[in-house]
Amino acid sequence: MEKEKKTIDYRVEKDSIGTKDVPEGVYYGVQSLRAAENFHITGLSMHPEIINSLAYIKKAAAITNCEVGIIDKKIANAIVKACDEILEGKFHKDFIVDPIQGGAGTSLNMNANEVIANRAIELLGGQKGDYSIVNPNDHVNCSQSTNDVIPTAGKMTSLRLLKNLKKELRRLYEALSKKADEFDHVIKMGRTQMQDAVPIRLGQEFKAYSVAVMRDINRMDKAMDEMRTLNMGGTAVGTGINADEAYLKRIVPNLVEISGMDFVQAFDLIDATQNLDPFVAVSGAIKACAVTLSKIANDFRLMSSGPRAGFGEINLPAKQNGSSIMPGKVNPVIPEVVNQVAFNVIGNDVTITMAAEAGQLELNAFEPIVFYCMFQSIDTMAYAVQTFVDNCVSGITANETRCRYLVENSVGVITAICPHVGYQKAADIAKQAIKTGESVRDLILKEGLLTEDELNEIMDPVNMTEPGISGKELLVKTTAKNA
Amino acid sequence: MEKEKKTIDYRVEKDSIGTKDVPEGVYYGVQSLRAAENFHITGLSMHPEIINSLAYIKKAAAITNCEVGIIDKKIANAIVKACDEILEGKFHKDFIVDPIQGGAGTSLNMNANEVIANRAIELLGGQKGDYSIVNPNDHVNCSQSTNDVIPTAGKMTSLRLLKNLKKELRRLYEALSKKADEFDHVIKMGRTQMQDAVPIRLGQEFKAYSVAVMRDINRMDKAMDEMRTLNMGGTAVGTGINADEAYLKRIVPNLVEISGMDFVQAFDLIDATQNLDPFVAVSGAIKACAVTLSKIANDFRLMSSGPRAGFGEINLPAKQNGSSIMPGKVNPVIPEVVNQVAFNVIGNDVTITMAAEAGQLELNAFEPIVFYCMFQSIDTMAYAVQTFVDNCVSGITANETRCRYLVENSVGVITAICPHVGYQKAADIAKQAIKTGESVRDLILKEGLLTEDELNEIMDPVNMTEPGISGKELLVKTTAKNA
Amino acid sequence: MEKEKKTIDYRVEKDSIGTKDVPEGVYYGVQSLRAAENFHITGLSMHPEIINSLAYIKKAAAITNCEVGIIDKKIANAIVKACDEILEGKFHKDFIVDPIQGGAGTSLNMNANEVIANRAIELLGGQKGDYSIVNPNDHVNCSQSTNDVIPTAGKMTSLRLLKNLKKELRRLYEALSKKADEFDHVIKMGRTQMQDAVPIRLGQEFKAYSVAVMRDINRMDKAMDEMRTLNMGGTAVGTGINADEAYLKRIVPNLVEISGMDFVQAFDLIDATQNLDPFVAVSGAIKACAVTLSKIANDFRLMSSGPRAGFGEINLPAKQNGSSIMPGKVNPVIPEVVNQVAFNVIGNDVTITMAAEAGQLELNAFEPIVFYCMFQSIDTMAYAVQTFVDNCVSGITANETRCRYLVENSVGVITAICPHVGYQKAADIAKQAIKTGESVRDLILKEGLLTEDELNEIMDPVNMTEPGISGKELLVKTTAKNA
Amino acid sequence: MEKEKKTIDYRVEKDSIGTKDVPEGVYYGVQSLRAAENFHITGLSMHPEIINSLAYIKKAAAITNCEVGIIDKKIANAIVKACDEILEGKFHKDFIVDPIQGGAGTSLNMNANEVIANRAIELLGGQKGDYSIVNPNDHVNCSQSTNDVIPTAGKMTSLRLLKNLKKELRRLYEALSKKADEFDHVIKMGRTQMQDAVPIRLGQEFKAYSVAVMRDINRMDKAMDEMRTLNMGGTAVGTGINADEAYLKRIVPNLVEISGMDFVQAFDLIDATQNLDPFVAVSGAIKACAVTLSKIANDFRLMSSGPRAGFGEINLPAKQNGSSIMPGKVNPVIPEVVNQVAFNVIGNDVTITMAAEAGQLELNAFEPIVFYCMFQSIDTMAYAVQTFVDNCVSGITANETRCRYLVENSVGVITAICPHVGYQKAADIAKQAIKTGESVRDLILKEGLLTEDELNEIMDPVNMTEPGISGKELLVKTTAKNA
Repeated sequence: MEKEKKTIDYRVEKDSIGTKDVPEGVYYGVQSLRAAENFHITGLSMHPEIINSLAYIKKAAAITNCEVGIIDKKIANAIVKACDEILEGKFHKDFIVDPIQGGAGTSLNMNANEVIANRAIELLGGQKGDYSIVNPNDHVNCSQSTNDVIPTAGKMTSLRLLKNLKKELRRLYEALSKKADEFDHVIKMGRTQMQDAVPIRLGQEFKAYSVAVMRDINRMDKAMDEMRTLNMGGTAVGTGINADEAYLKRIVPNLVEISGMDFVQAFDLIDATQNLDPFVAVSGAIKACAVTLSKIANDFRLMSSGPRAGFGEINLPAKQNGSSIMPGKVNPVIPEVVNQVAFNVIGNDVTITMAAEAGQLELNAFEPIVFYCMFQSIDTMAYAVQTFVDNCVSGITANETRCRYLVENSVGVITAICPHVGYQKAADIAKQAIKTGESVRDLILKEGLLTEDELNEIMDPVNMTEPGISGKELLVKTTAKNA
Repeated sequence: MEKEKKTIDYRVEKDSIGTKDVPEGVYYGVQSLRAAENFHITGLSMHPEIINSLAYIKKAAAITNCEVGIIDKKIANAIVKACDEILEGKFHKDFIVDPIQGGAGTSLNMNANEVIANRAIELLGGQKGDYSIVNPNDHVNCSQSTNDVIPTAGKMTSLRLLKNLKKELRRLYEALSKKADEFDHVIKMGRTQMQDAVPIRLGQEFKAYSVAVMRDINRMDKAMDEMRTLNMGGTAVGTGINADEAYLKRIVPNLVEISGMDFVQAFDLIDATQNLDPFVAVSGAIKACAVTLSKIANDFRLMSSGPRAGFGEINLPAKQNGSSIMPGKVNPVIPEVVNQVAFNVIGNDVTITMAAEAGQLELNAFEPIVFYCMFQSIDTMAYAVQTFVDNCVSGITANETRCRYLVENSVGVITAICPHVGYQKAADIAKQAIKTGESVRDLILKEGLLTEDELNEIMDPVNMTEPGISGKELLVKTTAKNA
Repeated sequence: MEKEKKTIDYRVEKDSIGTKDVPEGVYYGVQSLRAAENFHITGLSMHPEIINSLAYIKKAAAITNCEVGIIDKKIANAIVKACDEILEGKFHKDFIVDPIQGGAGTSLNMNANEVIANRAIELLGGQKGDYSIVNPNDHVNCSQSTNDVIPTAGKMTSLRLLKNLKKELRRLYEALSKKADEFDHVIKMGRTQMQDAVPIRLGQEFKAYSVAVMRDINRMDKAMDEMRTLNMGGTAVGTGINADEAYLKRIVPNLVEISGMDFVQAFDLIDATQNLDPFVAVSGAIKACAVTLSKIANDFRLMSSGPRAGFGEINLPAKQNGSSIMPGKVNPVIPEVVNQVAFNVIGNDVTITMAAEAGQLELNAFEPIVFYCMFQSIDTMAYAVQTFVDNCVSGITANETRCRYLVENSVGVITAICPHVGYQKAADIAKQAIKTGESVRDLILKEGLLTEDELNEIMDPVNMTEPGISGKELLVKTTAKNA
Repeated sequence: MEKEKKTIDYRVEKDSIGTKDVPEGVYYGVQSLRAAENFHITGLSMHPEIINSLAYIKKAAAITNCEVGIIDKKIANAIVKACDEILEGKFHKDFIVDPIQGGAGTSLNMNANEVIANRAIELLGGQKGDYSIVNPNDHVNCSQSTNDVIPTAGKMTSLRLLKNLKKELRRLYEALSKKADEFDHVIKMGRTQMQDAVPIRLGQEFKAYSVAVMRDINRMDKAMDEMRTLNMGGTAVGTGINADEAYLKRIVPNLVEISGMDFVQAFDLIDATQNLDPFVAVSGAIKACAVTLSKIANDFRLMSSGPRAGFGEINLPAKQNGSSIMPGKVNPVIPEVVNQVAFNVIGNDVTITMAAEAGQLELNAFEPIVFYCMFQSIDTMAYAVQTFVDNCVSGITANETRCRYLVENSVGVITAICPHVGYQKAADIAKQAIKTGESVRDLILKEGLLTEDELNEIMDPVNMTEPGISGKELLVKTTAKNA
């Protein structure tokens, strides 16, 4: 009875390793199942976008194979239909292989081939598993190899995810720019090496953040071009074995048309098959962006430190209770998650780099981990930027009074005096001010170095936030006087 | 009507930020919900083992608080019961916060506090959300802070996962040892810097692998001790504010008893609250293990390269079709996944290191990413080792004939001649052998450097795989002859 | 007497910290000396090229300050002359500060200011140390801050070193291209995942290497543009305090003219002063190149493995004895050094990234380590590529017979049969061939799948290295036959 | 004439590659010279301590070879004498090979062999280059291989450098402990996530730093044990080929005696020859220490931020002018250099890890870069700690008034009220205090939650820095009152 039950619930599939029971209702086949058993590493599912990328590729290949007369129109059409259904979100749960898998993505490619073949068989009126109707290798994978399909899918996916990340970064740029305008009049102390330096305007600081983010967006744009060169048609090792010349010419243009994305075919398919340095370069650009974001997050945490025993220059919006024991505590939780994502992106970059370096001869077998880390870096960064914009940056407010108080109380304004009295004399006054707690202004007056009128002209903090020598016209005079 | 429906499905909860609708049936509360909204970063769930760790901690705290008279027995009992249910696997789906979260784990801690409080309220006959019965902060979190609970939970979880990893590593050690015995008689060429060196036995190589794995196990053991020092009782900043002295003394012993794990309380709770270097140290040990595993995987891929155009010394079991285009190809997919996990562990170590370095003053706010990466490293490595043992190492076979052929055909055996004829003369013969293709033996005979009998004594390949100068007793004679 | 001697050998200098004896003959002053004492970290000297960069900057600043009337022509001329002497290689030994230093490069900047001031004083007939003639701060550093000078010097230096690296990479590109032509006819086995795949030509492999290197060169070119945006004129925090508007406009054009290098002034000087992400981006590009080089080096070590018990497909030139104990052993020492430099570059990238991330508010204080690692990465990579070209690539020879033998002996040629008999049938034959040792050709004939004539048409290995289905015209026929 | 001159200045040496002119006066020979030409990578010299390590090893080998009758006493004595002279600091300049070199250290080993051989030849009355008297390979390298000598030298060197690092760390521990005592009475605000938390004493903070450093010292100690297992006697691949059994037994004990260091011989010499994971483990421990040091440096920079617009809690000693443009500015230059060294150590750890992972089969060819990075990490950290102790920690002073002011002005003291009024009520008060600027005390009195006497008992800041519930005896009463 046990046995009888099994004949109902399972179908038997066969590959070079042997036969295997496959649950009756599923679209994946024997090869997917073996892979799922071999690789239970993360327990996670494949990224839905790489499943979609594979659907685009298999569809383009079927159309091209049909155009050049390698596979029948009927079969091609069924494959195309199956791919379209996947693009509508169907059968994603039949992609059962782990994102971290051995074999350069063969398991993922075969999972796609099997799901598409079985759905195409169904569409042609056959029974799942009857690969004489549509064969995963001979038809769905026709003119292809894991070695051109998988890098292509990785690049397509990266591009779509990067597009989303760029969208979020542009929102961040705008939110920062808006704050730059809002805070343009807020005079505050600039700090270098955590020490009071010279005055700056809070708006200038936010402007600088926005400019840095824009540079990252531009850098990302350039990096994305690294993902536009595909090795489709290279098949096994890039030589194009078993890919008809006509197919070779048509596959990338067809993929461009079907996906609506910009791609070119690599002029050296062998190079494009074996090297993952474009992923390293893109990860490098993402990492540079992570550095920018983390630096901004750090600054926010510093400037909002307090509320009373810290810098207290800005307030971050309170998004949740900060502490389970300290009532009323509000913590910079959103910047903190930005930092953490940045750290993860930087670690992922190391993983991607090592995996890329480990490629051997005609192939890099470590694409799965490269993709896993790359997709994670892009996705988590996009989500982090999203919450950064919506739950932090947009709601930041300035403590203008506190900011101005710190400037007026500071010794750093001595810098503006420097051209008038010389570095060494200015340094002596600064030292005395710090020691005694007296103000720089009082000390200068006491020493008779400058008059009150001269000081008023020189020491305007707003002037100090723009280029120029404060009281330049006094310079010759004062220089002479103190010579 | 919409509104009416809502009064049925939601309850209103309030915290310092304001009020919020919480779905009626759930055990989490307002603070969990805010956190889930603020942090949609990975989209993944918390590791079940850290949920369990929190249940152990909250249970131990409730018991201790009850013992020292801070909370009522009735409330304590309800909390304990709720924790026990979590440990039975219940309510895990009510842990809704993202593993990557800002706020040093406050969100996770509050998620636990809320789930436990609501379940305890129910057990006491109340309605979820009526925190006057059991309060998440005042009762469940009593005498605790995120800042002692979360590092403790991270350490408890790491230890349990490491225990599992160690179990798998021990299985690997045994599988390698078994192969070492099986292959002890297989003479093969040793290679240094990928060049033919001197003979070695395949069993010796597997023995060396097993010894390296054992060293990793021992290193892991020592590293685990880093996780046994807890800061429970330190509360907010390690000073123990709001933790009664009696609680402080009892909490760790109680936790030890409840969890059945070995722990001690840190003698400096302030240090133990702010520093994550123990996680860096443990990650370092895991990384060293990753290096060992990746090296073994690399060697397997080298030695099994071929089957005909490579080294071809060993065969890895065929676990799945290797290629979607190249029929009959069997690839080293299991070692490849080991490599990839190793690369990921190494990248995670960088993330963990950066996060640990970024701690500031009384706390490191970046524990969530440290834990996320740490748990991933340990878990994926355990799974990788499991498949390595079961689907690769155990099934490796040796190509004895091929191995012996390569030794007999090699020039490397010249090394054994060296003590008898001197390095320079030996080098000349080796060079000639490589150039002409003649065998070392023939060239030595031709030059009359040694007799056939002498050569037979010196050039036994098995002897060359053990310490000693082959034909030492001939040494004076031959040295004299060639001087 | 001791005292008398001292008055001869030392001069006394004073700064805000106090007075200090400075050896009489030296050009550096009190501030350099304090820094040298504070930072004895590497014990190494500053890179000569950053000393030159500082000379260019100080010269440009003196000229600009003179043009806009801030400093006297006489003083400016003396400063210019002193800078020119430094550019001729003089006084480099007076740069005594350690490359790894605290303080965002203030020590290095002041070292330059002091050396130039003292030499200018001499040129004006004064005594070293008499800063009333030329003052290191008020004159040499006039209108500048460490915070614009040092990032600028770092970028100038990086660009000059990168130019040299690019030159070496271009030589590598040419050497590889030449070998690609030379080896274009050499048929060999292609390998994916270390397993025999399908035939490829050795020349195609070298072509792919050359294309990858060219991509790195192009990437480097784009990355170099990141170094062309300077913050000169931004002074302390990028607001341009104490920099006259006219100076601000002229300083970068003057620096361009004097150095002969292309630069633009940042449109946001505040951003350009505080952010080091351009260095992260450039390091990322260098790292991507390191990945390419290391992969090529790995392939060379694989393909030259043997000479008898390995792949043995190519020979690397013998550059030195390979072993102190194994006579005649020649090791791939040049590729090995390329690998090691690549590993170091990858590690340096992590350091650079962390340092860039650690910047706070108006400045990144960690430029010294960024520069130290960056210059080391570029320089060591340039030297490694140089020896790679001259001592390895140029002298590589192919073992044509061995290469062809491995192809003819392989099972991988089955792939070309696949379109004719289907994947599953082909896989069965391949499996049988591997098991029995029989040739694929014989098995196909024995099974009557194809005739000898058909096989001859399909199985030409040269054809297999170019796109297309071998024997496509037979396809309909054979497919029919085997259907 | 040219030729004649050359015969005076050069001697001709010969190896398997061919002949080469070697400058007459030098002690190195043809193989060193080839290596120096092949590897001009860093332009730096070998670390003097690894030269000393080689001298110890060669001396021990000569003595052991003599004891077991493999080399003549006369030759052995000359070798021993030459080694002793190297240990006295002689001939270091004759070690001409670059620290980053291909070939697993063969170049360095041969450099040592040649220098020692030539000096021994001289001592025996011969002419440098007459290797018939003492041969670099047959005598100096007798019973050895690069593959046991170089890892051994790397471990010996690491241990001696680590000993020095530990000494400096112990000095840091003491300096921090001293400050902990000195600052024990200084009440200040504790901060978590950069937000005001609860009071802590500055001395408690320094105590925590000292405890963390002590943990690093202990961890370093354990890690050092990883370096005590040597593969001397393993020769080429760890099988001990050409090493007499008696030599094998005696070599490590002799090395222990000669060097005065603790070592054991690996029980599996094959494993110990091919695996570098002990270096990864040690680097991991150094990295964990770097994390601790960098965190302390970060805290110092935060707490000393200001002097007026920052935290201003402590003062670091002024060691040099902080700015070339901002007079009187004193920057935290010493902590900054500690941070930078930490970043470099973390990057080096990645390099070491990658190099260790890249080992293949019987050997890891990448020891040179492992050693280069390891020695740099240890040395620069030791120097950084030295300057940290002497130029920073020892001179730190506290701003007690400022520290106390911040506590008294803070809202964080609300935490102590929490047990008395409940978390939610306390949170409401805190929120109001932050909003209105009123003190927590006033608000509580205004609301009549506690009496003035009760508040005095509960809110003592010193009490808050020690474990316990402030005003526990009031708890029942107040709880009742507010229930």
